[in-house]
Amino acid sequence: MQRIIDKARILTEALPYIRAFYDKTFVIKYGGAAMLDESLKASFATDVTLLRYIGLRPVIVHGGGPQIGEMLSRLGKETSFVDGMRVTDDETMEVVEMVLGGRVNAEIVSLIGRVGGKAVGLTGKDCGLLQVTRHVGADGRDLGRVGNPTRVDASLITTMTGSGFIPVIAPIGADEDGLGYNVNADMAAARIAQELGAEKLILLTDVEGVLDAGEKLRPRLDLEEARAALGDGSVQGGMIPKLVCCVESVAAGVTTAHIIDGRIAHALLLEIFTDVGVGTLVRAD
Amino acid sequence: MQRIIDKARILTEALPYIRAFYDKTFVIKYGGAAMLDESLKASFATDVTLLRYIGLRPVIVHGGGPQIGEMLSRLGKETSFVDGMRVTDDETMEVVEMVLGGRVNAEIVSLIGRVGGKAVGLTGKDCGLLQVTRHVGADGRDLGRVGNPTRVDASLITTMTGSGFIPVIAPIGADEDGLGYNVNADMAAARIAQELGAEKLILLTDVEGVLDAGEKLRPRLDLEEARAALGDGSVQGGMIPKLVCCVESVAAGVTTAHIIDGRIAHALLLEIFTDVGVGTLVRAD
Amino acid sequence: MQRIIDKARILTEALPYIRAFYDKTFVIKYGGAAMLDESLKASFATDVTLLRYIGLRPVIVHGGGPQIGEMLSRLGKETSFVDGMRVTDDETMEVVEMVLGGRVNAEIVSLIGRVGGKAVGLTGKDCGLLQVTRHVGADGRDLGRVGNPTRVDASLITTMTGSGFIPVIAPIGADEDGLGYNVNADMAAARIAQELGAEKLILLTDVEGVLDAGEKLRPRLDLEEARAALGDGSVQGGMIPKLVCCVESVAAGVTTAHIIDGRIAHALLLEIFTDVGVGTLVRAD
Amino acid sequence: MQRIIDKARILTEALPYIRAFYDKTFVIKYGGAAMLDESLKASFATDVTLLRYIGLRPVIVHGGGPQIGEMLSRLGKETSFVDGMRVTDDETMEVVEMVLGGRVNAEIVSLIGRVGGKAVGLTGKDCGLLQVTRHVGADGRDLGRVGNPTRVDASLITTMTGSGFIPVIAPIGADEDGLGYNVNADMAAARIAQELGAEKLILLTDVEGVLDAGEKLRPRLDLEEARAALGDGSVQGGMIPKLVCCVESVAAGVTTAHIIDGRIAHALLLEIFTDVGVGTLVRAD
Amino acid sequence: MQRIIDKARILTEALPYIRAFYDKTFVIKYGGAAMLDESLKASFATDVTLLRYIGLRPVIVHGGGPQIGEMLSRLGKETSFVDGMRVTDDETMEVVEMVLGGRVNAEIVSLIGRVGGKAVGLTGKDCGLLQVTRHVGADGRDLGRVGNPTRVDASLITTMTGSGFIPVIAPIGADEDGLGYNVNADMAAARIAQELGAEKLILLTDVEGVLDAGEKLRPRLDLEEARAALGDGSVQGGMIPKLVCCVESVAAGVTTAHIIDGRIAHALLLEIFTDVGVGTLVRAD
Amino acid sequence: MQRIIDKARILTEALPYIRAFYDKTFVIKYGGAAMLDESLKASFATDVTLLRYIGLRPVIVHGGGPQIGEMLSRLGKETSFVDGMRVTDDETMEVVEMVLGGRVNAEIVSLIGRVGGKAVGLTGKDCGLLQVTRHVGADGRDLGRVGNPTRVDASLITTMTGSGFIPVIAPIGADEDGLGYNVNADMAAARIAQELGAEKLILLTDVEGVLDAGEKLRPRLDLEEARAALGDGSVQGGMIPKLVCCVESVAAGVTTAHIIDGRIAHALLLEIFTDVGVGTLVRAD
Repeated sequence: MQRIIDKARILTEALPYIRAFYDKTFVIKYGGAAMLDESLKASFATDVTLLRYIGLRPVIVHGGGPQIGEMLSRLGKETSFVDGMRVTDDETMEVVEMVLGGRVNAEIVSLIGRVGGKAVGLTGKDCGLLQVTRHVGADGRDLGRVGNPTRVDASLITTMTGSGFIPVIAPIGADEDGLGYNVNADMAAARIAQELGAEKLILLTDVEGVLDAGEKLRPRLDLEEARAALGDGSVQGGMIPKLVCCVESVAAGVTTAHIIDGRIAHALLLEIFTDVGVGTLVRAD
Repeated sequence: MQRIIDKARILTEALPYIRAFYDKTFVIKYGGAAMLDESLKASFATDVTLLRYIGLRPVIVHGGGPQIGEMLSRLGKETSFVDGMRVTDDETMEVVEMVLGGRVNAEIVSLIGRVGGKAVGLTGKDCGLLQVTRHVGADGRDLGRVGNPTRVDASLITTMTGSGFIPVIAPIGADEDGLGYNVNADMAAARIAQELGAEKLILLTDVEGVLDAGEKLRPRLDLEEARAALGDGSVQGGMIPKLVCCVESVAAGVTTAHIIDGRIAHALLLEIFTDVGVGTLVRAD
Repeated sequence: MQRIIDKARILTEALPYIRAFYDKTFVIKYGGAAMLDESLKASFATDVTLLRYIGLRPVIVHGGGPQIGEMLSRLGKETSFVDGMRVTDDETMEVVEMVLGGRVNAEIVSLIGRVGGKAVGLTGKDCGLLQVTRHVGADGRDLGRVGNPTRVDASLITTMTGSGFIPVIAPIGADEDGLGYNVNADMAAARIAQELGAEKLILLTDVEGVLDAGEKLRPRLDLEEARAALGDGSVQGGMIPKLVCCVESVAAGVTTAHIIDGRIAHALLLEIFTDVGVGTLVRAD
Repeated sequence: MQRIIDKARILTEALPYIRAFYDKTFVIKYGGAAMLDESLKASFATDVTLLRYIGLRPVIVHGGGPQIGEMLSRLGKETSFVDGMRVTDDETMEVVEMVLGGRVNAEIVSLIGRVGGKAVGLTGKDCGLLQVTRHVGADGRDLGRVGNPTRVDASLITTMTGSGFIPVIAPIGADEDGLGYNVNADMAAARIAQELGAEKLILLTDVEGVLDAGEKLRPRLDLEEARAALGDGSVQGGMIPKLVCCVESVAAGVTTAHIIDGRIAHALLLEIFTDVGVGTLVRAD
Repeated sequence: MQRIIDKARILTEALPYIRAFYDKTFVIKYGGAAMLDESLKASFATDVTLLRYIGLRPVIVHGGGPQIGEMLSRLGKETSFVDGMRVTDDETMEVVEMVLGGRVNAEIVSLIGRVGGKAVGLTGKDCGLLQVTRHVGADGRDLGRVGNPTRVDASLITTMTGSGFIPVIAPIGADEDGLGYNVNADMAAARIAQELGAEKLILLTDVEGVLDAGEKLRPRLDLEEARAALGDGSVQGGMIPKLVCCVESVAAGVTTAHIIDGRIAHALLLEIFTDVGVGTLVRAD
Repeated sequence: MQRIIDKARILTEALPYIRAFYDKTFVIKYGGAAMLDESLKASFATDVTLLRYIGLRPVIVHGGGPQIGEMLSRLGKETSFVDGMRVTDDETMEVVEMVLGGRVNAEIVSLIGRVGGKAVGLTGKDCGLLQVTRHVGADGRDLGRVGNPTRVDASLITTMTGSGFIPVIAPIGADEDGLGYNVNADMAAARIAQELGAEKLILLTDVEGVLDAGEKLRPRLDLEEARAALGDGSVQGGMIPKLVCCVESVAAGVTTAHIIDGRIAHALLLEIFTDVGVGTLVRAD
């Protein structure tokens, strides 16, 4: 009996968070291990569905790099990376659209549907959702069909969330001519969060969070600290663009941005419903 | 870390119940120990508020016998009981209205408000909510201002629940002339549940539930079994009218009716969100 | 026949007022003789119901001092007054909540219900309706559970009036911890009127209105005149706080505030629907 | 003072009627003396506006025979009557449309507007409001552009009344080709009342009501009595079609139909808001 | 087959215009030849109905000078003009109201109804739609009941267009006392367009448009050019007030104003759905 | 000038069709040449967008067989057909989902977006839109992941069309476990049309329509004739299942079903907006 009373107590501990986040929008970048491990996939789908049922508005933006890579290799198509971005010729882009917009997106929609959520698959090409310009590399180098988000038309997303659906968005943007572009999923999620005035931007990653020089997790950064960490070289590699996304989003009005460890089951719920947190939170001050 | 992962798992275990009960109405008779013990009071208020936030529609009907008795004795007013009902002369009724509609009702509203729920205190006299006729005792004996519910006008309740409020109802009814009557809270809750087509009628009591001859809890009764238990004398005393309320409600379309043990913290949540249950459930078959 | 034609003419004379006040909110402090005399009670209930049916939005705030006093004396509880306010210890407050929130409030709800109005009883503790801080007497003296209104959350009231209900509010406020406080009904009504941006604040009293030095009624005061009357000592005793309520309300945007003679049958209708008026009107200029 | 208290009392006496008729539709045939006498015109406009403000839904259908006759004679156009209906050639119809749809209709709209009502002038040709077939006289005689109402499309009227407007309808119908026809205003009002499921059909006339053989007013007729009166010849002349309109409307579901004396000021209010009544009421039983 | 493919192509060429003008309001002054020639009348009615069905909001204001003149002469009533405006004594005004508000208005409503549009006839006297002051002639000369538009209450029009109806408005205004006035239809249309914040004001005329000194059509004028044309005498006669209406409307926020040649079948559609245009367009710059 | 007048006339000829089909749903199976030829693709996108703007509700279901075949061959994956259906093993299904749900669907969304339509890409896996059971071949042969539509949940589609969007649906269904299945696009479109109670089901094909024995087009078939044609062998090959889809849809309440020649530019508009029609129409009688 004690066990089930503990259970009830845990449910009630969630109440202050449910109250605080009621009807708020959460933009979640879904990627990495959490997209590959079967058990983590199920826990993610359950978490998102639960968020929706208790009155929050989750919006998913997913990645899919490994799945793209695998299909390219099956097709015998060579591929290269510059500054962490895949050089994307027209043929590669065709594969990107198929894999992200077709297979990966549909799989996430199914995952959520199986636990009772009403998910709808979208790509950034739907209704001008994600508008981009062609990315220009650091040295003016052209990476092909790689896009930088410029404008987000959020009306389709809010129609969805307002009717109880969970949008699942593939990070493909369109330029003015409707041509598709590969977009970094973190950047897409960040821009969408900004446009929606989201409560939280949450980036699911395969690391613990932002670490300090001594490899210790920094659980909280205000904007000043985050900018300092970017400036003094203590943050490196793939973490740099992620932290930049967080900083820009918070500066643009998103209440908090999070880089969390997607390798932990139910990382989303833990982040949202406990004080512990699982990763690094960035906020204005 | 394991502890907080367990925590998240428990939250997700609630998901199927949240999905199943979304937007459904739960009429809860609040009384007994759960109204007297400070810790149980807080757990009740938290449970009800949580139900509301996650999308259910709780409606509270409360008792208040002990508080009425205490005030009558402070006023030096004698009182007597017939068939478990308080003989209620006009002076006693005045005290009943004050204590139930004033003190007890307001205290419950405060309790819920303190944990963030938006509770509104009502009595059955508001807008013809609970209409009664004068009760006639078994032998034609008049018990004074004791009323039997005849009709419920639920429009005020649904206006409230439709706007996110939690109605807290004192079991005082009015006859055709607007005169107030003392109504048994279980009966009031049962009639309101029937009118609202509630998903559940839940009676919080100070006992484990319906027991069999060997004093063992009977966790589930279908209508036939419940009627048999009432007919063969295995149910006795104060449990009889409670079980009758459950049977009548289920027969009138309430999905399930519950007699649960209010002495257990978070009994409501356990009943609603786990398969264990804490008491006796009555259902059609 | 002439008689019934006169009747029709009188109805049509009300038209300009009905047009002018359509959908406007009227906060009415109900107290004094109008709450004690059976015939005046009936005329008040009819007036309020009529206002509602012809499209105005009445909101009632009631007093109940005599009824509290009577119950305290029945309970053998001594009570004292400082600056016209009842010193309210915890035990007294319990009685205040019972009498105001229970008996008096319910009686007014019944009165209105009997002539066909849909009244709902509320107290300021419902949903944070009336938030208070503990009153500090002139000389720093503590009067116990006496509260000064600080904030009004009018959402519950507007939900009610928007659905055709007449809110009847007992002047009990809550502090941050949800603890109940006795609030002066005039002050409660004034604060609620200000929050609602009411068309009129109407204080029903047992006097003719504001009198001048020669004991003659002053039918109209602009803010300057009203402040002068408060400053030069021509207004005295219990009329001072009432006039202060009117001045503050008008200064805060209530179109007109009225101190009227509740001893006259249908004083409300006369005030609202005729040019004669029955008491003193305060307006900006 | 007594006089103004009487005034308030009269207002409150209207309350039960206001409650009973709230949101109900009243189709009023406006014609005869009430359209010619300046004082009666003003009293009619005031009554209708008052009805609207206190929550009823008046719909006006007006006549205009005298005004048409006067214009025809100014134009030197001869005209004749058969069975009380004007023989209407194309040239006459043109005048009918101008006078009814132009001058008379606009004057009524102005009258109501001047006392604050929001009236909108319509003719039965607007949006298929009043559809007719060509009338065939008793002996197969053709009366020209005289129409019998066949179908009413009430959507325009309900759009109007639902937005707070008072429709003022000229009794001109259209056949399938959109050609205009002169329609008897009583018949038009009756058909519109039937289509709207009106609470009351009220025909303003220049007589006291239906009289019995001894020339005494018959204040109330059930359907059986009304049909008997039509059958036994006790009702004669112009009263026959009016009573037929009432009988058909009540038989089709209009709650009550009234033939009232429009020569009395405020006849409408008296009929609606007092028990006295001013004319003959027809009801189902 | 080629012919019907051409047909489809023409339909699709309208798409960019339909997209651009969706839900926008078009105020159209209907007059001149387009009101007299049977074939042009039919083409006008079809055009307006088509506009409504494809999602635009047409509002018609019509003239009727010739019809008024004809009726006055049938009545043997002399009439004179000053500065292009009819001197309107009370008797003349009566005829104006009848002819414009009765015959002409009803005919347009019928025309539109016959091709399936839901038209509703209004005059500026309905619900204070068009409020005027008495016009004073250039030399202080009184022209009688000729009015200058001062205020437009557009709520009736937007109720109509919001419910899918096409308002057809006779240019009769009312002064403060509700007295009717003859208003120039161009001016009425211009004022209504301004109040509605219309996309286009379109004046149907019997000329090609604004001509230059060489009698050549000027297809486009910005505000500066239009004012210059008015100032330098190159625009003369009846075109002056029309161009003034256009200039004032564009200055007040109407996107474009058009003086088009109503003698061309489907001039409205051509103006709205092609780049060719048929007349003179005035825009801000 | 004559040319542009012809243009306007053509626009107005569409009016009766626009009126008749306003707010009606059209389910269009998009496939064949119309999906491959650049000019036909553009004409299709324009047609669909035009339909939406003028108030109809198009819903697109697309095929994609050639694109799937091409990708399979690029991947070196063999494929076979049974009864015209592709045998679909798990690996093939993965490709189907990618190609249909990713590339083809996104391309159609882009096409429509480029001409200003607001298209949203969906697959039948979104929110239980298209539920299937595993297809069993004629001789009990298993074709792998080929599904027969069983149930359609249209709520997502109607949310979309109700908000002005154009749903573009890939014919992939899900079984109870959320597993994806390849569904024949004609059958998917037919089932969706039935569930939506569509006005028209339109199948775009690469043939003229249903031909008779003499290879002459049969422009119209009632249900009896269509069933006869299926029974007597005059319809053969791929036309059989298409005609079956039409018959079943009309029998289930779709007003008309069409097999049209998608090789003609603007075939959709011609079918919907002219009396000529371009193919075979099936209707109840």
